[in-house]
This record gives sequence, C-alpha cells and structure tokens, in this order.
Amino acid sequence: MYDVLCFGEAMIRFTPFHFERLEQATTLRMTAGGSELNVAVGLARLGLKSAWVSKMAKNPLGSFIMNQAQAHGVDCSHVVWTNEHRVGLYFLEQGANPRASQVIYDRKGAAIASMTPNEVDWEKILAEAKVFHVSGITPALSKECQATTELAIATAKRLGCKVSFDINYRARLWSKEAARECLSRLLPQVNILISTSDDLEILFGYEGEEAEVARRVKEAFGSDVVVITIRAAPTVLHGHWSSLALADRLYTGRVTELELVDRVGSGDAYTAGFLYGYLTGDMQKAVDYGDAMSVLKHSFPGDFAYVTLAEVEQMAKTVVTRIQR
Amino acid sequence: MYDVLCFGEAMIRFTPFHFERLEQATTLRMTAGGSELNVAVGLARLGLKSAWVSKMAKNPLGSFIMNQAQAHGVDCSHVVWTNEHRVGLYFLEQGANPRASQVIYDRKGAAIASMTPNEVDWEKILAEAKVFHVSGITPALSKECQATTELAIATAKRLGCKVSFDINYRARLWSKEAARECLSRLLPQVNILISTSDDLEILFGYEGEEAEVARRVKEAFGSDVVVITIRAAPTVLHGHWSSLALADRLYTGRVTELELVDRVGSGDAYTAGFLYGYLTGDMQKAVDYGDAMSVLKHSFPGDFAYVTLAEVEQMAKTVVTRIQR
Amino acid sequence: MYDVLCFGEAMIRFTPFHFERLEQATTLRMTAGGSELNVAVGLARLGLKSAWVSKMAKNPLGSFIMNQAQAHGVDCSHVVWTNEHRVGLYFLEQGANPRASQVIYDRKGAAIASMTPNEVDWEKILAEAKVFHVSGITPALSKECQATTELAIATAKRLGCKVSFDINYRARLWSKEAARECLSRLLPQVNILISTSDDLEILFGYEGEEAEVARRVKEAFGSDVVVITIRAAPTVLHGHWSSLALADRLYTGRVTELELVDRVGSGDAYTAGFLYGYLTGDMQKAVDYGDAMSVLKHSFPGDFAYVTLAEVEQMAKTVVTRIQR
Amino acid sequence: MYDVLCFGEAMIRFTPFHFERLEQATTLRMTAGGSELNVAVGLARLGLKSAWVSKMAKNPLGSFIMNQAQAHGVDCSHVVWTNEHRVGLYFLEQGANPRASQVIYDRKGAAIASMTPNEVDWEKILAEAKVFHVSGITPALSKECQATTELAIATAKRLGCKVSFDINYRARLWSKEAARECLSRLLPQVNILISTSDDLEILFGYEGEEAEVARRVKEAFGSDVVVITIRAAPTVLHGHWSSLALADRLYTGRVTELELVDRVGSGDAYTAGFLYGYLTGDMQKAVDYGDAMSVLKHSFPGDFAYVTLAEVEQMAKTVVTRIQR
Amino acid sequence: MYDVLCFGEAMIRFTPFHFERLEQATTLRMTAGGSELNVAVGLARLGLKSAWVSKMAKNPLGSFIMNQAQAHGVDCSHVVWTNEHRVGLYFLEQGANPRASQVIYDRKGAAIASMTPNEVDWEKILAEAKVFHVSGITPALSKECQATTELAIATAKRLGCKVSFDINYRARLWSKEAARECLSRLLPQVNILISTSDDLEILFGYEGEEAEVARRVKEAFGSDVVVITIRAAPTVLHGHWSSLALADRLYTGRVTELELVDRVGSGDAYTAGFLYGYLTGDMQKAVDYGDAMSVLKHSFPGDFAYVTLAEVEQMAKTVVTRIQR
Amino acid sequence: MYDVLCFGEAMIRFTPFHFERLEQATTLRMTAGGSELNVAVGLARLGLKSAWVSKMAKNPLGSFIMNQAQAHGVDCSHVVWTNEHRVGLYFLEQGANPRASQVIYDRKGAAIASMTPNEVDWEKILAEAKVFHVSGITPALSKECQATTELAIATAKRLGCKVSFDINYRARLWSKEAARECLSRLLPQVNILISTSDDLEILFGYEGEEAEVARRVKEAFGSDVVVITIRAAPTVLHGHWSSLALADRLYTGRVTELELVDRVGSGDAYTAGFLYGYLTGDMQKAVDYGDAMSVLKHSFPGDFAYVTLAEVEQMAKTVVTRIQR
Repeated sequence: MYDVLCFGEAMIRFTPFHFERLEQATTLRMTAGGSELNVAVGLARLGLKSAWVSKMAKNPLGSFIMNQAQAHGVDCSHVVWTNEHRVGLYFLEQGANPRASQVIYDRKGAAIASMTPNEVDWEKILAEAKVFHVSGITPALSKECQATTELAIATAKRLGCKVSFDINYRARLWSKEAARECLSRLLPQVNILISTSDDLEILFGYEGEEAEVARRVKEAFGSDVVVITIRAAPTVLHGHWSSLALADRLYTGRVTELELVDRVGSGDAYTAGFLYGYLTGDMQKAVDYGDAMSVLKHSFPGDFAYVTLAEVEQMAKTVVTRIQR
Repeated sequence: MYDVLCFGEAMIRFTPFHFERLEQATTLRMTAGGSELNVAVGLARLGLKSAWVSKMAKNPLGSFIMNQAQAHGVDCSHVVWTNEHRVGLYFLEQGANPRASQVIYDRKGAAIASMTPNEVDWEKILAEAKVFHVSGITPALSKECQATTELAIATAKRLGCKVSFDINYRARLWSKEAARECLSRLLPQVNILISTSDDLEILFGYEGEEAEVARRVKEAFGSDVVVITIRAAPTVLHGHWSSLALADRLYTGRVTELELVDRVGSGDAYTAGFLYGYLTGDMQKAVDYGDAMSVLKHSFPGDFAYVTLAEVEQMAKTVVTRIQR
Repeated sequence: MYDVLCFGEAMIRFTPFHFERLEQATTLRMTAGGSELNVAVGLARLGLKSAWVSKMAKNPLGSFIMNQAQAHGVDCSHVVWTNEHRVGLYFLEQGANPRASQVIYDRKGAAIASMTPNEVDWEKILAEAKVFHVSGITPALSKECQATTELAIATAKRLGCKVSFDINYRARLWSKEAARECLSRLLPQVNILISTSDDLEILFGYEGEEAEVARRVKEAFGSDVVVITIRAAPTVLHGHWSSLALADRLYTGRVTELELVDRVGSGDAYTAGFLYGYLTGDMQKAVDYGDAMSVLKHSFPGDFAYVTLAEVEQMAKTVVTRIQR
Repeated sequence: MYDVLCFGEAMIRFTPFHFERLEQATTLRMTAGGSELNVAVGLARLGLKSAWVSKMAKNPLGSFIMNQAQAHGVDCSHVVWTNEHRVGLYFLEQGANPRASQVIYDRKGAAIASMTPNEVDWEKILAEAKVFHVSGITPALSKECQATTELAIATAKRLGCKVSFDINYRARLWSKEAARECLSRLLPQVNILISTSDDLEILFGYEGEEAEVARRVKEAFGSDVVVITIRAAPTVLHGHWSSLALADRLYTGRVTELELVDRVGSGDAYTAGFLYGYLTGDMQKAVDYGDAMSVLKHSFPGDFAYVTLAEVEQMAKTVVTRIQR
Repeated sequence: MYDVLCFGEAMIRFTPFHFERLEQATTLRMTAGGSELNVAVGLARLGLKSAWVSKMAKNPLGSFIMNQAQAHGVDCSHVVWTNEHRVGLYFLEQGANPRASQVIYDRKGAAIASMTPNEVDWEKILAEAKVFHVSGITPALSKECQATTELAIATAKRLGCKVSFDINYRARLWSKEAARECLSRLLPQVNILISTSDDLEILFGYEGEEAEVARRVKEAFGSDVVVITIRAAPTVLHGHWSSLALADRLYTGRVTELELVDRVGSGDAYTAGFLYGYLTGDMQKAVDYGDAMSVLKHSFPGDFAYVTLAEVEQMAKTVVTRIQR
Repeated sequence: MYDVLCFGEAMIRFTPFHFERLEQATTLRMTAGGSELNVAVGLARLGLKSAWVSKMAKNPLGSFIMNQAQAHGVDCSHVVWTNEHRVGLYFLEQGANPRASQVIYDRKGAAIASMTPNEVDWEKILAEAKVFHVSGITPALSKECQATTELAIATAKRLGCKVSFDINYRARLWSKEAARECLSRLLPQVNILISTSDDLEILFGYEGEEAEVARRVKEAFGSDVVVITIRAAPTVLHGHWSSLALADRLYTGRVTELELVDRVGSGDAYTAGFLYGYLTGDMQKAVDYGDAMSVLKHSFPGDFAYVTLAEVEQMAKTVVTRIQR
C-alpha cells in the first residue's frame, strides 16, 4: 500500500557553482529533480511509503535519477523504461539581486512525453494508493501526457484514491488557454488543490487576497481543500514564506524569514509536508508541516528536501509556540 | 524472497584526491563501503534481490550509508538502528609505485560491534534467502559479532539457505590464532568458500599452487566450492586478475591486465559476480562473471562496482571468445 | 581569405572526474567539442585563419560553444543562430583497462540537423577559402545536413577550393549502407581523404596493410591524397600513434608511444596538423605535423589541441632527428 | 571600424574560494581582468565592435588573457607581444562584514609598463575608432605608459575620435600629486569623464553632493559629459548602486539594491553600458544602460559582465517603468 | 617563556560545501580545530608565544592537526602522543535561515580522554608560562581530563601563572549538575573568566543584563576579570557581536554587524584577542582586541582566525573612532 | 643546534589539475616549494632539526610559504622579511607522453634576489649548524645572492660546519660560463657535492659512466663525497631512480621503478634522505635513505616529501632484503 503515488517527469539538473553563469562555468553540479519526484522524495524522507511513476530513457542519466530517488526510499518499480527518447535536462543559474535566478530547460524529446495512457496499469497501482499526486507540468508535456494524466486522475477518483494536484503553471510548456482548457476538466476531480496567487490570476483571473482567491477556487472546482503558498521575495537571496489552506475553515501558518540557498523544489517540499500532515494528522498539521518542509528546503542545494522528520516536527512546533495562531 | 542476504559492517570512506596524503589534503571524497555491503550492491546492480543486514548509529553518517545502499536497490529494512555508538570510518591514501596504497581504519566503537545475536530475527529473514553471505571481517569485529555470525550461519545452514563466506583475514582486527579458532567452527558449515592464497597460507599454512591449495581447503572443510582469487600487482597502478573455483572439477578464468583506478572492493565485486553466475547459471558462469565484475571494479573509484549487467555479460563473453578455455 | 573553412556540429561535452561513471558523478567538467570545430581550433592555434560554420540554438549553451571557439581565434561569423532546437550534448566516461572509455550522445534535436542548404551563402564564403573541411559526421546528422554537405562540397569543388574530408564513420548515426551510398557521391570530389583502416574496411571492405588500403582508396575515389591514421591501443590508457599519406608516393611518420589523458579529438588534431603542413609546406610536413598535433592532443583533457606552433614544430622535428625516415 | 578602442593592462586574477584567505587557500580560481579590458568585453557582449590594445608577455598567462578577451569577441590584433617582462597578477580575498574585501597586486615588471608611445600605430588604429577609452590606471603604471597615454589621447582628439576617461585613482600606483599633475594635462582633452566622488575629492578637493561635484568638474575640464557613479555599501555583501551624468542637463538613474557576489569590474561594466547607450541612443540611455550593466555585474564572479544585450535592456527598462524619472 | 599555554582537545573538522547536508555531500573540507587550540593559534598569529598541550593518537589525522597548529607557530612540543585511541572528529553542517547550523561530534574514544594528570610535567611547563588557558570542554571530556585540568589549574595558581578559563558549557558532554560541581572547584582559582549569559544562566541561574550577571559572577568566584561575550543572531547568516569585561570597572566594546561565513571558533578568537590585549596593554585594549578578533573570525571558514596583527589593530581602532565609548 | 641549515628561495607553485594546460585551467592548486626549503622540510619530517634561511616579501604569499614550512617543523626564525619586492611564483604543467611536463617561472623581482651578505648574521647561525645546505640555484638568482652564498659557504667552512651543495644547474637563470666561473670558486669548499650526469657534462664536460664522472668530480674539487642521482624516464609518467655516492669507496643503491605522480622536488627529497643517513649513520645509509625518500616523493603531489621516518626506513630496508647489494 502506498501512502502517496506521484506521477511526472524528472530531469537531470546542472548547476554552475558560485553564482557563475553557464557561459563562464567549467564544472557543473549534477543532481536530479522534478516536481512530483521531489514530492515523493520528501514524503519518503518523512517516513511515508511513496512511489514515483514516470517514463525514462534507459541510459546512465536515467539510472542516475532512479538511484537518487531510491536512495531516499522512493519506490521506482513502476517506472517505464525505454531505449528510445532521451532524459530531459535543466540548467539553473543562481542569481543575486538584482539578477534573478534563471532556469534553462532542455526537456524536448524526453521519454515521458511519449507516454501513453496504457503503459502503466493505473487500475492496479492506484488501487494500492491512498493519495495520487500530480502537478500541472505533467499534462503540459505532450498530448500523450495529458491523456495519461486524465486517465490516471479519473482512475484514482473512481477507486477512491484522493487526488492531490499542484497547478504549477509553466508558460514555456503551454499557453494559458491550453492550460485552462485542460485544467477545467481535471480540477473538478481534485481533492487537494495547491497553487499560488500568481498562477490562479494568470489562469483564471482570480485577483485579490489569498484567502479570497482560495474561496473562489474552492467554489469553482469543489476541491476538499485549496492551498495557496505565499512567497515574498524582496531580493533574490532573501524572502519570506507562508501559506494558507481553505477546507472546512481557513488554516494559516506563520511567516518565516528565509536566507535562500536554493528555492527550486520548495513548493514540492511544501506539498510533501502538507500531504504528510494531512495523512497523519489534521489540516493545521498539514499547513504547519508544509510550511516547515518548505522553509527548510530553501536552505538545501538541489531539488530535494534533505530533512528528517524530527527536524520538521521541531520546525513546525516552533511555529506554534512562537506565533500562537 | 532474497537471492542473497549479506551481513556485515559498512563504513564511511574518506579518500584524498590526486594521490595526496591525508596530511596534505584539504578536501576528501566521501563514499560508503564495507565488504558485505559491496557484495549486496553488486548483486542488486546485476538485477538480483539482495539485502544488507547491519547495525548502525542513527545519525547523518548512518543515513548516508543507507542512502548509498538503497540507491542501487539494496534492501536495508533489516538494518538495526541505535542512538548509541558511532559509524565507523576509514581513510584511503592512494599510492603509486613504489608507495603502496594505505588504509587507515577508525572503526572502534562502531555500532555493529555491539550487535548481539538476537537483535535480528535470523530465523525469519534467512527463511526468505537463497544465499547468506558474510565475510571473515564480521566475526572479527567483536565477541558479540562473532556470536551473531555463528548464529546466523547455523540458522542459514539449518534452513537450507546456502552459506557463502569470504575469509578476508584482517590482521589488525584479530590474531591468526583467534581467526583460526573461530573459522574452524564456521567454515565446515560453508557452501561457497572464497579466499586468497595469502590468507590461506597465513591462517592454515597451505602453500603452493592455487589449485592445490583449493584442493586442500575443500578437503579440510568440505565446502561445495572453494574459490581462490588471484591478484598479481607488479606495480601499484598496474596488475593482473584471475581466479579459479574448485567444485566437481576445476574451473578457471582468464588473466586480465588491469590499469588500477581503485582496487578496494574488487574482491567483493568478484563475490557478487560469482554469486550471480552461481544463482543464474553454472560454475563456469560464476567464475567468468566473478572475474568480469572484479576487473571492471578496478576501474571505478569507491568501493562499489558501478556496472550494468550488459557490461558484465559483455566482459565475460570476451573471455570466452578471446581465450577459449 | 580563410585558410580553412570547417563545417559541422559542435556539442557541449560533459565529463565526470577521476574515472567516475556518470551514475556516481556529482560534478561534471563542461567543455565544447565537435570534429570540425576541433580542426578549426587546431588550425587557429597554429596561426592559420580558420572559420567554423554551423547552426546553433541561441542560448547559453550555444554561446558557451561560440566563446570557446572564438577564444582560440576561430571565426564564427557564419554560424547560423536559431531560437528553436537545442544544443547537442555528449557525455564521456573515461575508462581504464579493461573498461573502455564510453561516449553517450544526446544530440537528437540539435539545431544543425535542421540546417538546409541555403541557410549559408556557400558561394560567397567558399570563394574566400583555400580549403573546405568536413567530416562524415555532418552528412550523417540528417537528410538536411546531407543535402547541405553535398551542396557545400560541390560548390567548393567548382570554386577551386580544395576539399578535405575525414570519413569518421559513426555507426550510431547511420547504417553502413546509408553511409556508403552518400559517401560514394561525395568522395570522388574530395582532394584530401582522411580515414582509418577500420572505417575503410567496414564501409568499403578494404582489408590488409594500411599502405595497400590507401592505394585502393586512392584508386577508387581519385583523391589527391589518402591519409590513414593508425592507432594501436594495447590498453585503455596506453597506446601508439602513427599515420601514412599516399599522394605522389607514400609518406610515413614515426610511431609514438602515448600515455593517454584524453583521446577524443586526436584525429581532428591530426587533420589540423596535416592541413597546416599541407598549406605551409609539403606532404612530409603534413604527415609530421599531423602526427605531432595528434600525439600532443592525447595529453590534454577536452576535445581541443592546446598546442603552440613552437611545440608542434619541436615535436615534428624530434621525429626527423630520431627516426631518420 | 571599431566602436570603442580600449587601452590598458590586463592581469591574471587569482581568487580563493568560499571567503578563504590566501593563507588558507589550496586552490585558486583563475580569471582575467583589467579595467579597460573589462570595458571592451562588456561592449563586445552588447554587440559593439571593441578592440583592446595592450602589451603582454608571450607566455601561457598572456595567452590565457587573450583567449578570455577573444572568447567574447574583443579584437586583440593590436596587442603588442614581447618575450621579456611578465604578466601582472592580482589576488582577491573576498570579505564579509566587517572584513572588507582585499586586493593584493603583483603587477611590477608587467610588460605594459615598458610600452613606449610608438609601439602601436595610434594614428592608424584611432582613425578607425569612434571612441577611445582609457582609465587613470594606465598612465599610473610607468613613465612610458604615461607618455603613451598622452600620445594616444592627443591623437584621438586630433582625429575626431571621442575620448572616454575613467579616473580610477589608484593610490598604490602613484601619489595624489603625480596623478593630479598628469590628469590636469589629460582631462581637458576628454569628452566623457567618469569618476566617483571619492576620487574627485582626493584628487581635486571637490566635496559635496554628486551633482554639484559634477558641475565643478565639467567647468574645470570642459568635458562633454561628466559621469559620477555612486556606490553605497552598508556592509561588505550588501549595497546600493546609482549614477548621474551631467551633459546638457543632469541625467539620473535609479538606486538599485545589490547582493554582492563580486564587485570588481562593476565600474567598468558601467562604462561599457554607458558607452553603449551613448553610441546607440542618448544620454538617458547611457545612464540607464550603464546602471543596468553595473548592477548585473555585481552578481557575476570575475571581472567581466556576463550579460546579454536582452538582459541589459530588460534591466534598464525595469528602471523606467518602476521609477518614472 | 610562553605568553599563553593552552590545554585541550583538537579535532579534525569535516565541512560539506555550499550548505549541503552531510547526506548529500560527496566531498568534505578538512580542517583542524578545538577551543584551546584555536586560542593558541590566534595568539601566535598576533605575535605572542603560545603553546598547545594535548594528547593525540599518532596517525595521519593527528599529524594533520599538529601541522595546522605549527603552521601558525604554535609550540606543540608538549603534546603527548599515543599509539592507542583515536583522533576525535566533528562535522559541521552550515545552515541558512531558518535552518540552524549543526555540529555532529564523533569524539568518543579520542586520545585526550585517557589523559591522566602526570602525563605532562605541569610543574615544569607552567613555570615557563605567563597565562594558562583552558575551557570547560576539557574537564568535561572524562574523569581523567577533569583530574588533569584540576592539577594543571592548581599548579598554575601556585606558580603565579594567571589562569584564563572559558566556561564553554557543552550539554552533550556533561550534565549541568556535573559541570556545576566541577566548576565550583575550578572557578575560584581563575583570574580571567570568560562566558556567555546563556551558559551562566544554565549553570548558575544568573539572569538579567550582562553587566549585572558579570557582577554576580565576579562576586561568586572572585575572578580578577569576568568577560561576557554577546552574540545576537537575528538570522543564521546575519548577526551582531559585542562584549563586556568587568574588572576594576566595566569595560564595553561596540556592537558590530556581522555577515557570517563561519562562526565556529569566534569565541576562541575573542579569547585570543582579549589575552593579547591583556598581556600587551590594558583592559580596554583587551576588550577591543577581543572584539576585533572575533568579528573578523566570523568571516573566515574554519576554526582559526586568519588575521594579522595589523588588521586587528585597524579593526580595534575603527571601534574607537566610530563609536566614542 | 641545527642539524641542517638550508638557504635559498621558495616560491608559490601553481599547478593546473588533470593534466590541463594553463590556458585551459580555471582553478589552480597552490603549494609552496623551492629546492632548499624542500630539503629542510624533508629533514624536519624525518625528525632532524632544520632551519630555512631566505628573504621574503611580507605579504600573504610570503606568509603562505612560511606557514607551509613551519607546518612540518622547519625553523623560519632567520627568514628576512621586506615590504618591498615580491614573492616568486612558478607554474607547473604536468605532461603525459610524449608531452613533457613544463615549468613556467615568474620569479623576477623576488625578494631574495636583493639579499646582500650581511642581512643575515651567518657567523652566528652557522655556528649552531652541523651542515649548511645550498643549491646552485641560489647563487644564480642575482649578483647579491652569489655574494651572499659565497660568504655563507666560506663562513660555514671556517666554522667547521659541513657544506652540502646540490649543483642544480638552471640554464634559464645563468649561462654555463657564469655558472662554471662561480662554481669553480664554491665547489672546492664543499663537503657533500650532489649532482647529475647531465649537469656535470654541461658544466664541466665530464662524460661517461656515473661512477667515472663521480671520480673525476671528486678529483677536481676534493669533496668528501660526490653523489650522482640517476633518473631514467622512458616516458613522462614512468621511470626509474637510482643513485651512487663516491666517498672512501663507491656506494650504490638499487634501481626503483616509478609511477610518477609529481617529480618536482624528488632530487631535494634525495638530499634530505642522504643528509639524514649521513648524520645518523654511514654512507650506505645515506644512499639508501636518499633513494627511499626520492622514490617516495615521486608519488606525492607538490614539492614536499610527505613521508614519515618509519616509511623511509621501511622503504630503505626493502632495498637491502630485495636487492642484496
């Protein structure tokens, strides 16, 4: 039985050192990452049983990613391997104010884009999962991925497996219109809907305070819970993090001051923490653990949240005692 | 069901770069290793189901080792964790002729030394294993480890699980006499006995040609198969590798010329390859895959054999076509 | 006026350090390379005016490659830039005996594959070039590249620009049959034909001694000169290099013992040295400078031959005095 | 035709990693830099045609610098090479509050110090240049350099080539008196005069607000435009940047908050951006592009501004829309 | 004659790079450190004659530490060497807000823990020392260390050598009760007592303003001078440092804003600066030099304060002119 | 009392990694070295009391060198410090066959070149030394150094301190004629004269077998012992080492096969080993320990011989038992 089954692409990430641009780099750090894999890793590190489903090219880069996932205990037995296609890559240039950090994607032709609905026995694996998690990146990768995502979500829904969905809008992958069209079909089936004010405004035109936006989203799609993560970044290397969740009522967390080492994957860390709290406690625990995971993640290089459960508990507790919500 | 269940210590290994001495190093490479873990990793990389049993301190160093093992698919669910004791370390200074490579151990007080026979349910886990593998390092670590090893071997024997044993004599851990005393009790229960001429001479006084030594060992302990690995090292960075196995008859492999990148773990790689061949083919396959794994291992830094099954098959085949045994 | 104008793909090359496999790497060295670019760089370093023509994606990886080319003085003003497509990559795992070094290509979808004959004004730029150089990799990249190569060669021929062609057969890019079909059209227009015995046997079935093979190639295609480079590699890190050229008569160089640091690009270094000798001296100088460039290249990491003219002259002279041809 | 021709020394720069002192360093990062070279590189990256004139020792360090310059497209064909003298070096220790960053120069005996007025055909190369740029470092290097700078400026003036001059006072190279004496002859010939309040106060005793100081400088030397760059550094790693230019009227830019990665070369980046704006637009564009280049430069390690034109345009535009000057 | 003789443990310190966790590290930086050794190094760098007494395992790790100490001129001739026991280690994970930095100790079984009072001829070496310095870590290491510390302090006292003691309470080494019991015997013999408000509250229950706490401590133990160092750390990477000393009257220093590179050893740097000022000047100099050393130390990686005397003087002077105490 | 007092220049050495050329390097390894300093370090590591006399610029590079020397216990108290002049540097490009390793010196203007005879009180410090060691590099540095060397040697001679001299001819520093002229005055005062056949042929025209050359040198200059070190280098990375000493009779050592990591400093390591054997044993011990030190040195990066006495003893013993001279 899986606590959470995640579905999506993972890529090799190359990062220059010391704020270098790619053009000046001579060595790159090599790590693995991808929104849903990051969630699976976070969950596994907290002690839940998570699996990651994907399609990957059978080559050393694909093996590298699988090794990284397995190292933290993520089940990769349902990954589909192929001798065609490639492994997607991305490059991260870390900025410093006023130069924003920049991501350069090289994911065209990646194996997952060719993944058709029946390459995985969704019926079987979703029957063993409590939560199915996917982000809006997966359906944006290709028509095939969109069809596969739709089948997976519909199957999960039918089997009583909760659906968690992080909108994660990527303008470089699809247009607002295409995204809206697809999401309008997917979101009504989603139990846990996670997003940001920015994405919700871009896609659905919801403006205003986060709590209000959450209310409108909940109304529009009927999700059990709508989560909005809130990042304020006065400069590139300093920021603040908080979040709120609207379910039976509004749950809020504290605002944490961040010294940013690496913000990639912090939203996914939040999702992992949120789902952990959701599966092992209540909505407030979900928000607090989501926040704790995310703020810790900002301090680790790479996509993954190298936390221990004890650290997250400690960080979440700090919330309660210091802030008195 | 495990194909092979391995039992022993794993350590953090620190290696200076570029042939530096520890005294001149300012950065060290950090990897994980340990004779039986190396075997488990090798087997998992070849596609078999392997588990590694040990006792480790619950701290970031222990987690590092577990991550490294899991990355390759080794089952670590039977590792015993403790909040006391430490994680053993070792330092490797790579030499170049005429300076031999040197290992500095810092393993005193490691958690496994405190491991008593009943901390693991041997009855249960050995019932699920085809082969139980342990090396002579494990009983040498402490009285407790010796008792635990004895119980594990006896239990395996009783349950019909084959026992594989690599003598691996470590003079810094116990005296010849202590080793001989213990081994004289363990070896008669062993199915697959792996060693070198040097160790067999030191411990049992067997001198002469490897085939002859194997014959005497087989006679003395009644093993199903006696394997002798043969390393010739004219210089520190260049050498030759071969091996032989005496079962129903003598099986020999070819001699391979080596450019040594890192020889630590090459004996363990041999064992992994041998057990793979043994479990999936016949004695000749065992020898050929053992040789192939070992000679490839010499070319990777770190303790592990970063091979693929296809590469080992290819390397083993090369043997047949080139050498015509 | 360009001494040599080269046409072909260049890629980003990622190389793990210290004989690591990709799977165990955490940092990769990043360099640029590609057969024809390597030739252009070698020529520029020797003091000739070289240009490199290609099509590249306008992104930091493309800029990285251009920077590397320009650093050595290669003219990149005719490179075609595009906002679509990607920059090809390749990964090099350095082996040690008996593990061969391994190249993993990730060049699908690279910009050059989309390059049609008229994206460059061949008429104009070849009118300014003494020699046009291309390898068999370029027509193998795509139908478009094949058509472009054909037009370029035909135009060069017509304009009296000498055509230099390195067969460089890549089995992963096209079949023997496809290569043979294309080359049978291209080679008769070639003035300087460079290859190896292996490629000539695979493609045209020419077996036997290099001199004899050269004779048959010259007969078959009517080249002014046929060059065969000869590499003997008893182990992965040690080898020997020599070459011969058949023009009005047979020209031979010495055999040099090599300690291999990085053999990628050594054939291209030969071509650069050969063309330098050809353009500034005679056929014997071409062979000697080709050999000198190539043997030096084996000692530099990366694709490029970081030589100075003085060093090549010195190395070539050593030949004469030591070997007395 | 060159847009800008720059004249001055470039050095090898060695930088320890991770805020180390030189005394504790075991590896150093090696880059190239020098005030006028930095300007030339910045201009070339923005798409203008820039050349850099200097005198350098013909050795691998000199080649390293030339490669770095050429990589970005800077014309180095007028560099004078010599087999005597050395290549200057400097070491940068990056500080953190309250330890200021520190530069240790090792430039004595560098080739350029021996450069006499006639080693370059100023008449010819300045006839092809729209702007001649030099900083106050060059005449400070030696009597010979002073004479050469004077000749170059006078020649530029005579040929109608605009003269850009960055005062860049270096107290370690010459005294206030010596500088004042020399500059009082050079500055009246300068069209674009760039400096800081600090230098203007030290050298000419001008105190007060930047706009007022600019007015006095303009009056004193009759420059077409006087630029003052303004750096506020409350701590070592955080600061603010702005600038103003006094021409027909006062032009001002915004104040940008900086997270400093490396401030060396940021003044030169400003000059490059300013000259780009000046040559392709108007005075406001000059100020905005100067600011944009400089604030971006603070985020890159090394002396060079690894920007693209698009990024600078974007950063400059941000100014306009956000600040409404 | 030694100005200061320090007694305590030193360890090998391993630090991951780039804010990595140990779990994700593949290379570690290796340095040496230990509270009293850090003091000795700081004093030697300022030009005083310092010695460091300890007991260490005779192996490459022990040699590494001795080399590091001697490099700065610390006298190690009284270190006791043993072939048994090990060299203690510690690992430092550098955090970023809100993740605190974390130290993982691996010092069990270190040689010093076995050090009995008579392994060093205290009588002889303390007769040659002006000041004996030790911290509360040393007696916490073992019963043997406690006895040795007591003997050393008593001997110093008797011989008229001033005793400097930094309380440095380490909860992982001993309980409050054990510490209090031991310290209540040691502190009355101490001339210079250095601590923090936190430790003084934990151990002795003294709460309130630092000056008031100092007064109570002075009263309780009769020290010549009580020093309290004051660290405010609003975030992990930014903080403030100040201190005060109560002797004949209260001496205070300024508050300095810190950008933290590495805070380990900053208290020891303070002690070195304080003792330097104490031995070469007066109490105000002691406070100012202590502050100057400490604030500079925060900017260097590693335990040691890589300062020069000139820098400390400059930093201390800045205090006076800027702050007007 | 010093066992050996060494006099000469030390430099910062910069070495690219991985066989890179300087032109392709982006990071350099930084170490310290210099012929006589290397000898002093070798002696100190073997347990003798050695001092190193030199003149150095008082800056971080000078401190770096001093730290490195002191780390191993070398007495630097007689080094003369100056605020003028610079610290000499050298760059080492490591080759691989057929590219020879290459040294690029940047030592012009180094402080030592300005050192006049009376800056050190030779009378006083040589009275405390058993052996004075200097190489032919020192008098080659400048007229001043030559005068200083002459005074030092004459003083040593007069005071009964043995003079050890390594000819170490450097063609880039002085001509054969200049060297011969100076050496003809110095060598007759030398007790222990160390050189190579190559240098002795170049300078004095002695050709033939080493033993014969030694005989002629001994005759010519009347040295107590003439040592010739013999290096055979069939390729860049593989070679052989041996030596002989002619005193009352001929003493020879074995030939050792070498895998070369770094040969710089191996001659100096020999000298250190030789002097150790000479001072603690007899002539055969001198040769054996010289050989042992040198062959070990070839396996360490950097100029210093990071040996322990036990290792050298072990290596020297191996000679005896294996080779039976």
